[in-house]
Amino acid sequence: MTKSVDVVVVGAGLAGLSCAHVLSRRAVDVLVCEARDRVGGRTDSAVVDGETVDLGGQFLGPGQDRAYALAADLGIPVFPTHTDGFHLAEDAAGRIRRFRGLVPRLGALSLLDFAQAEARFERLARTVDVEAPWRSPRADLLDSQTLAVWIRRTLRTAGGRQLFTTATRLLWACEPSELSLLHALFYARAAGSLRTVMATENGAQQDLLDGGAHALAVGLADRLGDRIRLRAPVSRIAHGGDGATVTVESGDTIRARRVVVALPPALAGRITYDPPLPAARDSLTQRLAMGATIKCMIVYAEPFWRSAGLSGHALSLPGPVAALADSSSPSSPHGILTGVLEGATARHLGTRPAAERKSLVLAELTRLFGPQAAHPAAYIERDWTAEPYTRGAYAALFPPGTWTQHGPALRTPIGPIHWAGTETATHWYGYMDGAIRSGESAAAAINP
Amino acid sequence: MTKSVDVVVVGAGLAGLSCAHVLSRRAVDVLVCEARDRVGGRTDSAVVDGETVDLGGQFLGPGQDRAYALAADLGIPVFPTHTDGFHLAEDAAGRIRRFRGLVPRLGALSLLDFAQAEARFERLARTVDVEAPWRSPRADLLDSQTLAVWIRRTLRTAGGRQLFTTATRLLWACEPSELSLLHALFYARAAGSLRTVMATENGAQQDLLDGGAHALAVGLADRLGDRIRLRAPVSRIAHGGDGATVTVESGDTIRARRVVVALPPALAGRITYDPPLPAARDSLTQRLAMGATIKCMIVYAEPFWRSAGLSGHALSLPGPVAALADSSSPSSPHGILTGVLEGATARHLGTRPAAERKSLVLAELTRLFGPQAAHPAAYIERDWTAEPYTRGAYAALFPPGTWTQHGPALRTPIGPIHWAGTETATHWYGYMDGAIRSGESAAAAINP
Repeated sequence: MTKSVDVVVVGAGLAGLSCAHVLSRRAVDVLVCEARDRVGGRTDSAVVDGETVDLGGQFLGPGQDRAYALAADLGIPVFPTHTDGFHLAEDAAGRIRRFRGLVPRLGALSLLDFAQAEARFERLARTVDVEAPWRSPRADLLDSQTLAVWIRRTLRTAGGRQLFTTATRLLWACEPSELSLLHALFYARAAGSLRTVMATENGAQQDLLDGGAHALAVGLADRLGDRIRLRAPVSRIAHGGDGATVTVESGDTIRARRVVVALPPALAGRITYDPPLPAARDSLTQRLAMGATIKCMIVYAEPFWRSAGLSGHALSLPGPVAALADSSSPSSPHGILTGVLEGATARHLGTRPAAERKSLVLAELTRLFGPQAAHPAAYIERDWTAEPYTRGAYAALFPPGTWTQHGPALRTPIGPIHWAGTETATHWYGYMDGAIRSGESAAAAINP
Repeated sequence: MTKSVDVVVVGAGLAGLSCAHVLSRRAVDVLVCEARDRVGGRTDSAVVDGETVDLGGQFLGPGQDRAYALAADLGIPVFPTHTDGFHLAEDAAGRIRRFRGLVPRLGALSLLDFAQAEARFERLARTVDVEAPWRSPRADLLDSQTLAVWIRRTLRTAGGRQLFTTATRLLWACEPSELSLLHALFYARAAGSLRTVMATENGAQQDLLDGGAHALAVGLADRLGDRIRLRAPVSRIAHGGDGATVTVESGDTIRARRVVVALPPALAGRITYDPPLPAARDSLTQRLAMGATIKCMIVYAEPFWRSAGLSGHALSLPGPVAALADSSSPSSPHGILTGVLEGATARHLGTRPAAERKSLVLAELTRLFGPQAAHPAAYIERDWTAEPYTRGAYAALFPPGTWTQHGPALRTPIGPIHWAGTETATHWYGYMDGAIRSGESAAAAINP
């Protein structure tokens, strides 16, 4: 079967859907090919105990203008993440302390150490050119080292280093050794600052969407209707001066003037291109591996922790859940906790039986919030590294030498092929907002 | 069309061919699927001006027992690389100096600096467990830093650093920022030592094969005959308890009890597996990008440099050719030079017109060897990053955090699927010898 359209969009995540949405509003004939039987990419939801919970991207925060605008456009209410009460921090020795604000009470020296490192990081981040990180002053030096080496050099206390390492795992879902310092700086800068990406209040975790963030993708898909084809993994893109022919796994082909590949770079690199892509592009996608996250959603009959004066937010060094956040909706009686397993922990526990993982998670929650935590109304999790059509989360990680040696290929179209996805965003790289921006940018480049 | 065999080998490089060769000698029914219209993978040859030249892997050296054994088995004579005479070194300022031995004359301080760094590198390399680098003492520390940071810390002189950086480009075809220190140490240790991989005499560049190294693959292919299917890129491997079904791009399928995927990890990761591979394996192949090499073979009517007392071997900091080696055969009147463009240079010049690249190469040869160098009888080059069925050379590069976080997945079979290729070798990783060993190991694992 052969069909012909103006634009094929590959991938019905927020980037692909946003792109198609803009194009279809401009009366461009667009078709979205999605490998899965659902839309949303790195956002997804499930209904458990009558409650819709987000299995992927979830929070919004100030500066994420395109995501808020989309929520408003779709009529999805936004509410602030519940933060009243004390947060908890479990240290490496298993001691649990209460704290308020962003940084747990670790002892004065560790806190000072973390603060000076954070200040240095912010100063360095402000030197990064988010449009072209490879052109930043001292880009080569910043890109020649891992974040691990920078942490070891910059922080002097064990407590401060542990905290920065935990922050790394939470922000990028990887170990500090897997990340270029330049990428970490770029990522923070693309969101505003390190403080912004770490924070709940006035930060990237400030707000939640009523009904879940996956509703953004579902709402866009409703508008696009039959312009989306599900269960249509794209295996091949033949391209030339007059357009492209996209082949899906079933063998069907679609002719188009332009193609927007809105996939994580690692997956974009697995499509067969004919002719093969230039070395610069292929060399880049060879390097952009995804972070490792298992997200756990734990639903209770009520947010019982609040009566104990607790916020539901917690950090834990022993883990396995590195951080917990209260995700309860004001419109529901349920208490909902979001927990994330990150980096090495996600990789290790991802190979264990689900029952073992759940029992380790609930054991931690019980340590933190008491015996009531052992009996949730529902427990659901998603290992994003095991998803064949995502293969990791939150986003692609640039290892050292990649922005400076291979960065220019990230957004450069190749003939009729354009690139979208949160990894191509210059603002809010790795976030839903970045995905939306990237899709809108690709649409503007095709049909200004 | 469906066929049924005992074992399908994916890839007819030296690893796949060696594996199939061993299996077929044991009367195992084997079929090799090769994407290209030729065998040899990262070895290839061309006949120019009546002379067979190697466009890929070329040299053998002591310790590469399996490669020498294969050459002997196939009746391919081996001869020592010509090294008589002075080598040349062009420094950053364009000054050309003569030298003998391994290290150019850079000034006493730089030489001492390089020597102490080399000694430290060798001591560290001896601590690496080549079977399981992640189990080496201090593996986490060694894998958390780039080779670039190690060079900056360990060497004190600009000259010494330049030399170590040049050595990095020559050995791994990348910039020092792209490589984990642990991987560099592992690589040297898997070959014996850093000295071994750098050296011509008593080192990895000691010998050449009469008729070229590609003859090893051609000889194996002759023995395997119609057990090799060319122009058969494997797009899909469905696998389960009772074997696998391999689909090639034409749509043909082959049933097999076992499959040996003998491709570079980055390309192995592009095949569609059904069911999808475990996260541990996919996460690894997402990270193992290839180095960047353009190999140039320059053929002259005679080795004219010898009459000037020169060996034909040279290093150049201004480049573009980072190193030159005399590859002339004693059985031919021709003078043949091998030149390599590496890392950032290969990436940059790979985007330029071939004529421009050739003229830059010949300009350098003329600076080094005089006006006769400007008029070769033949010039031929191969950009390995542009080859869709290799996508870089010499081998996969482990960025920081990869051996320690993802290493165990490298050689672990998944159901009926086994892995081969020089990247799975514990001895001579990245070399033809490692490829042969890996194929033989895979064959032994399947049919002991």
